[in-house]
Amino acid sequence: MKKLALFDGTSIELPRLDPSIGEAVRARWDGKTKPLGSLGDLESVAVRVAQIQDRTTPAITRPQILVFAGDHGAAREGVSAYPQEVTWQMVMNFLAGGAAISVLARELGCGLSVVDAGVNHDFGHAHGLVDLKVAHGTASYLHDSAMSAEQCRQAIVAGHSLAHDLSSDCLLLGEMGIGNTASASLLMHHLGGVPLAECVGPGTGLDPAGVARKLALLEQATQHHALLDGDADALTVLATFGGFEIAMLVGCMIGAVQARKVVLVDGFIVSAAALVAQRLIPGIESHLVFAHESAEPAHRRMLAEIGARPLLQLGMRLGEGSGAAMALPMLRLSLSLLEQMATFESASVSQAS
Amino acid sequence: MKKLALFDGTSIELPRLDPSIGEAVRARWDGKTKPLGSLGDLESVAVRVAQIQDRTTPAITRPQILVFAGDHGAAREGVSAYPQEVTWQMVMNFLAGGAAISVLARELGCGLSVVDAGVNHDFGHAHGLVDLKVAHGTASYLHDSAMSAEQCRQAIVAGHSLAHDLSSDCLLLGEMGIGNTASASLLMHHLGGVPLAECVGPGTGLDPAGVARKLALLEQATQHHALLDGDADALTVLATFGGFEIAMLVGCMIGAVQARKVVLVDGFIVSAAALVAQRLIPGIESHLVFAHESAEPAHRRMLAEIGARPLLQLGMRLGEGSGAAMALPMLRLSLSLLEQMATFESASVSQAS
Repeated sequence: MKKLALFDGTSIELPRLDPSIGEAVRARWDGKTKPLGSLGDLESVAVRVAQIQDRTTPAITRPQILVFAGDHGAAREGVSAYPQEVTWQMVMNFLAGGAAISVLARELGCGLSVVDAGVNHDFGHAHGLVDLKVAHGTASYLHDSAMSAEQCRQAIVAGHSLAHDLSSDCLLLGEMGIGNTASASLLMHHLGGVPLAECVGPGTGLDPAGVARKLALLEQATQHHALLDGDADALTVLATFGGFEIAMLVGCMIGAVQARKVVLVDGFIVSAAALVAQRLIPGIESHLVFAHESAEPAHRRMLAEIGARPLLQLGMRLGEGSGAAMALPMLRLSLSLLEQMATFESASVSQAS
Repeated sequence: MKKLALFDGTSIELPRLDPSIGEAVRARWDGKTKPLGSLGDLESVAVRVAQIQDRTTPAITRPQILVFAGDHGAAREGVSAYPQEVTWQMVMNFLAGGAAISVLARELGCGLSVVDAGVNHDFGHAHGLVDLKVAHGTASYLHDSAMSAEQCRQAIVAGHSLAHDLSSDCLLLGEMGIGNTASASLLMHHLGGVPLAECVGPGTGLDPAGVARKLALLEQATQHHALLDGDADALTVLATFGGFEIAMLVGCMIGAVQARKVVLVDGFIVSAAALVAQRLIPGIESHLVFAHESAEPAHRRMLAEIGARPLLQLGMRLGEGSGAAMALPMLRLSLSLLEQMATFESASVSQAS
């Protein structure tokens, strides 16, 4: 297992995003038979992918969806509209092919792996399931730290190794975990300095009274741990509020970026992992592609906090990597346009005066 | 050729959008293994397609891109950054496979037909080109009406017949015509009552001085025809400011809606055709799917004027139907999700409390 430098005191170095690659791809776009800049975000996303891949002919040939699943102790205390069992039930649904992400993977011709980061269930052997279980769910942050420092390290390292081991050139990162919008809200509050009330929303579908209850519980958790006073680092915040799937996403993201794989970041929870990664390694956000803005109200603010501009705004709030999947056709079409469009010269089209 | 009722004094009847079909599709979504409403716009677009197709199992099997091309007399007077020849040169580029829309059609597995509505060029016979040429470009609205009432009727009827004749179940409507953002701006001003300055933008890429020149020319055109005082109807406004491709788009849209085909509306110019269609047949906007919000600044206001909510905002401003093409994967994935996702019952997943 490759050692993650984060834990031996040295800082992690990000690969270089070469400005000359960006310039070259912009020049390629400008020669194509279209008004300058008229493909908008399709042009800029291809520039980013080229810089990530460090070549002027960016391509995605083996995209892979990874759904990290984990359970949250706090889910038993009323932070979600759904019971905790839904996490493992949905994992089974992913594997059986009936979930949204299963359908999207099939239709997009994408591999789909579900990673058990810490689900409170014994799956035995199941095809398509990667067993990296740290524990049977986190502890409740209302009473304890969600995970120990060692568990947190284990989850990050496991995600990091997984990213290196996969042969895919593009990872679509998603998650499943009843209670994990609450966890993401707490991370956002502590790492972004955003008032807790602006970090909390309905998640899978709480009504206003449910949101108020969730907020009260999260305020209680915040007071219990009192991390804001001190100089709690991102890892402490992550360990305190969980969950395992988020910690593993952090490691996976860092590993994928180091390996120059294209990472498509899904919604609110995966973005919370990106926020943690950014606090650990400032600048990493420029190596990620943010797929969409979720309907979870705090996601917009979280993206602003990261300094990220998402590709899509489809009012989705499902998780599972479904938003990342919706952005894949866009990414693929962008790269096909860059590769296949004629130039003004080759097509004998007059240019602007 | 099927007679268009618009011209014999009777009103055109739109097919019924059955509320019970909408309810049934919403109920199908609500049974799927996901939080209620969590697929956002993917859910609502499937509901719309189902109502358009008048069945609870919506499907798109034969999508077809139609690019209507026409020339504008006013293009010779400085309303565009590009010379008029670019219209026919780009038509050749579409057919040769090098334009953005050609690449998108290939990648999406979509038919592509280019319709010569009135290009100032003789193409002879060319594969993939549908010859419905009304004339070699419109007259300049700075001096004359862009087209005669008879030419306008001819273009609308031709588009209407084309929509009925095609076997596709989904039409992606695009356009090409140097000078046609100017035309669309004039239509918006006269039909939407929006101040001209708010209707005019850079189009294919005018600099601020160019936009100011364009605005001055369009103000001159507006004063020359002085249609605002009277009760000029939509057809008069359309005939006065053109172009042939826009008039043909109006007819095609109406025909497709009558035939219960799914119509994907592209950007600023195709939306101007939708605005004309709406003024002719109020309510038709509910039968159309608006693909994206263009980067042409006035498009947002135009969509609001129509009462349309677009699926995508990708900062594109290319035309050709490229925005409509980008929305097709979204539409297809939405219908696949509706068809293939498991229900809570079939997947044995617990529901929200």
